[in-house]
Order: sequence, then C-alpha cells, then structure tokens
Amino acid sequence: MKKPFSIAIHGGAGTIHKSHMSAKKEAAYKAVLTLALQQGYNTLSEGNSALDAVELAVSALENSPLFNAGKGSVFTHDGTHEMDASIMEGKGLKGGAIAGVNGIKNPISLARKVMEVSEHVFLAGTGALDFAKENQFTTESDDYFYDELRYQQWQEALENDTVQLDHSPLKENKFGTVGAVALDQYGNVAAATSTGGMTNKKYGRIGDSPILGSGNYANNNTCAVSCTGSGEFFIRGVVAYDVSCLIEYKGYTLAEACKEVVQNRLLKIGGDGGLIAVDPNGNTCLEFNTDGMYRGVKKSTGEEFIGIYK
Amino acid sequence: MKKPFSIAIHGGAGTIHKSHMSAKKEAAYKAVLTLALQQGYNTLSEGNSALDAVELAVSALENSPLFNAGKGSVFTHDGTHEMDASIMEGKGLKGGAIAGVNGIKNPISLARKVMEVSEHVFLAGTGALDFAKENQFTTESDDYFYDELRYQQWQEALENDTVQLDHSPLKENKFGTVGAVALDQYGNVAAATSTGGMTNKKYGRIGDSPILGSGNYANNNTCAVSCTGSGEFFIRGVVAYDVSCLIEYKGYTLAEACKEVVQNRLLKIGGDGGLIAVDPNGNTCLEFNTDGMYRGVKKSTGEEFIGIYK
Repeated sequence: MKKPFSIAIHGGAGTIHKSHMSAKKEAAYKAVLTLALQQGYNTLSEGNSALDAVELAVSALENSPLFNAGKGSVFTHDGTHEMDASIMEGKGLKGGAIAGVNGIKNPISLARKVMEVSEHVFLAGTGALDFAKENQFTTESDDYFYDELRYQQWQEALENDTVQLDHSPLKENKFGTVGAVALDQYGNVAAATSTGGMTNKKYGRIGDSPILGSGNYANNNTCAVSCTGSGEFFIRGVVAYDVSCLIEYKGYTLAEACKEVVQNRLLKIGGDGGLIAVDPNGNTCLEFNTDGMYRGVKKSTGEEFIGIYK
Repeated sequence: MKKPFSIAIHGGAGTIHKSHMSAKKEAAYKAVLTLALQQGYNTLSEGNSALDAVELAVSALENSPLFNAGKGSVFTHDGTHEMDASIMEGKGLKGGAIAGVNGIKNPISLARKVMEVSEHVFLAGTGALDFAKENQFTTESDDYFYDELRYQQWQEALENDTVQLDHSPLKENKFGTVGAVALDQYGNVAAATSTGGMTNKKYGRIGDSPILGSGNYANNNTCAVSCTGSGEFFIRGVVAYDVSCLIEYKGYTLAEACKEVVQNRLLKIGGDGGLIAVDPNGNTCLEFNTDGMYRGVKKSTGEEFIGIYK
C-alpha cells in the first residue's frame, strides 16, 4: 500500500474581504494557488521528497507577481527589494535561511542551497549574495521585480511615512508571505517560507520568515509548519516550534496544537496571522486568526481545498 | 521579606584546558567575570530590573578584549567586525536583536534600544546602523576593536582558509559568545547574549546569538536562557525555547530541562556548547557539554561561584 502524502500552501494572511476582491482578481489568486499546489502534489505523487515539493510550490508562488515574495516582492524604503526565506527538513533537522537578499529570482532555492552546501544555516545581506554567486545563482534585473501596484504602494507609504505589511491598510491589510509544508511517501516532512518583507521597511528589518523555529520548522517526530503574520510577534512567540513542542511534550494533536498557538498564545501577545502545518500521518491544519488567508491543501486521500476568506 | 534575586553569566564554552592557560591569563579572565557578575548583582540588589542587570553584565564582558563580543570581537574574512546581540524580558515577552553591525561599542545596548523604541524586533547590517545613528549611538573607530591576538587569529585562518569559532583549534577551541540571565526582586527574568562571530567568517553568517528562541529567551512563567556554542546547531534545535517548553509543557525543573537539552537533544544533532539559565524562583543552571565554559553565578542567598573548566 502506498503511504499517504499531503501538501499545504499559503500566500499570506490578513484583512482580506470579499468586498474588495473582483471576481477576476479572485480567480487569478486561485489559479496561482492551484498551480503551486498541483506542482508540489505531483512531485510527491512521483515519489519525490517533501523538500522537493515545498521548494517547488513556494517557487511557483514566488514566480507570481500576486504574492509578496520573489517576483511580487514589495519595495523597501530605499526603493529596493529585500527578500527573506527559509527551508527545513524533518528527518535530520537540517535547515537553511537567507535574509535581506536582492535580485534572486527564487530565494527559497537559495535557502535550500545554504542548507545543502554551506556549513552555516543563516546568511544575510551582501554576504548571502556572495554565496549565491559562488553557487551559480543568477540575479535578475530590477525590471523583473518591478510591479506598478507595488510601486504605488511604496509611493503611498513614503508619503505617509508608514510601514506597510503588504497592501494599503485602507484597502487590504495582508501579511505578505508565502509558504508550503509537505509529507512525502517516506514519512519525511518539510517546510518552506519566503517573503518580500514590508512596504517601505527600513533598518534592515528581519521578520520571522527566515527564522527556523519562528516562521518555519520541520521535525519528523511532530510536524512541519510555515507561518504568515505580524512577524515580530511570531518571533517573540517562537510560533512554529511552539506547535511542535505542544505535540511532542504535551501530546496535543496537530489541530489542537495549531489552534492553541494561533487562537490563544499568539493573540495573548497581540499577534495576528496564521500558519499551515502537516504531521507525519498526513493530517494538515490551516489555522488563522485574521479575516482571511490565501491557502490550499491537497492529499493522496483525494481531499483538496483552495480558500481565501474565513 | 526581600524576594530572592540571582544573576548568571557566561563568556563562551569550548575546549578550554587548564594546560593551555597561564595563571596570569586565568586570573585576568576571572577578574572580568567577577566584575561583570558584581555589576549585575549590585544593580539587582539596589532594586533595579533584571533587564538592567543583564545589559550591565553583558556590557562589562563586551568592554573586555578577552571575550569575543564588543571590543574583543574577532575579525571576519574581510578584516572587519560583524557583531550580533539580542535581549529579551520575561514579563511581556518583548525582545530586541541586531545582527552584522560594525563599530558599536555595546551591541547589547543597541539590541535593548530596538526592543524599547522600534516597532521591529530584529534589525541587520547597515540598516541596523542607520537605526543606531538615529538613536544617538556613537560608533567607535577600528582602533577600538583592534587586538593583536585577534588579528593573528584572522591571519592564520586566512592562510588556512578556515573559519574559526574563536581561538585556533590547535590551541583552544572556544565558542566566543557572552551572555547573562537574571531574576530581579519583582519576579521578572531577562536574558542577554552578544557575540563577535567567527574568525574569518564569510557570507554574512548569522548564528544563534541574535535569534530569540535559539540563542536567547526569557519568559516569567518558565526561565531565562542564554546560549553559547556551535550556533548552527542551536538554531536547528531552537535550544533556548526548548528549555522553556520542557518546563512549561512537561513540568521539568530548570536543572532537568537544561540537562535534557544540552546533554541529550543537542548532542543528538551534533551540537556542542552550553547555556546558562535562571527560573522565577532564583534557581540557576550552568550546563555545558564541552571541556569548559567561562561562567559565574551570584545569588541573594549568598551563593557565589566563578568557574572555567569542567
């Protein structure tokens, strides 16, 4: 009998109202989510690893201008793009992460390269770019990352001197991050998370996305988790590892652990957002305390779901 | 009755052999540890906060050329200094962290400023320096950070193209990090950690020291923890928060939790180093799986200890 496998993805959580969404826009979001989910699922189905699946799914989301990661990354205060990403595999607890990199088409692939060939786990800034160049990553021009909507968001934020998580708060307040978690046919889980940061962000701010334990975590004994939300609170709450600890140390189910962390512990310190998770039995959980989260899940049992609103 | 208070500090763990240590050198290390401990203890005794105590103690260690943090920071591959630090308080679970900053005399104070005035938790590189300048931090010249021993270590590492954690492996293999944890008279705990990184380090590598949950963590319900060791493994093990979770979710005592994490879970993935911890009752634990750890503890009960070797 084939062992079960599952994949879940997210494209950010926040104030996502149906009233602000045209049918055309909604269809466009759903099409990219479906594509990412399908690509990740297919590779699992062909017998490839959870690591391959989460990298592939996140790359598909990074390649779309709709999500704040890779091509769709928002503008920083200085008019550039600083992208963060991390990846982790649950068998050997190995991980790789990068922060503040510019010009890389698929930051998630760079994070995986750090995991696989570097003696380090976490590389940042121009140093991370040096590593990328030495490992034959090509850089894209600014044109590749230019998007009229993102540019307007930046101009608005500059005028108001505000930092924006993704879309303008008046229109849509969304935490722009993408992520994927998967269980493969060999019982291995993996998690991947990637973000373009915050519009008009200054000071080389690093959020939770590249931090193993906070925005991303994987452990074959417990679960794989990818988060999206107000990153500072996810760091202070060590959210991704908290889900794992509730399962390992307190015997919670995946659903119980995700609910406790997102609906209780995270809210207590003022954090909003959500997470996706998978356990070694193929159970998945898509938990958020905001109005919506771009999300999807597809399992070898035939279960499939794509959603945006609560 | 006065409530109990405690402080513990470390100055790095690793292969520290008595045979490689002159009496004069040992006395010099002990003098700085004693000074840092005394300054932290005195401020607690005067009724100040655990946060004040850990900042003060870590600053004293940063101001010494003997430890790899602040003034004693090692040289990177490019002949510069990239310092990381983080601080966290256990009442509100607030924290601040900086990575890859150059020229700041006391990185731990910059981390505290991030915690107190920034909407962010974690700032890196030149952006973190912009934040420092806007908040009236003065920068020291390269002369302040120049040390003949550190320079020679860098030259040796450059010749061999190796990355060194602190001292040359042939002489002494030490993980250069400093840290402090404290409980104040009001039942609040805090943790602070600061490092000058690895000799000849490239690629903007970030270790566990500035990562809340990995190298540093504080929670009034459980404990405060500061780590030192092979940072990559401390990140993958989410070590500091793991100690907290074993207490909160599994009912372990502080000593049991520290032992389980350092002597079992960390070793299982190949990590070596140690940590210091304090709980809300004033219990402390100085746990390491290496040959030595520069360390000290001082409590309102009168208990006092300074140690280097196992």
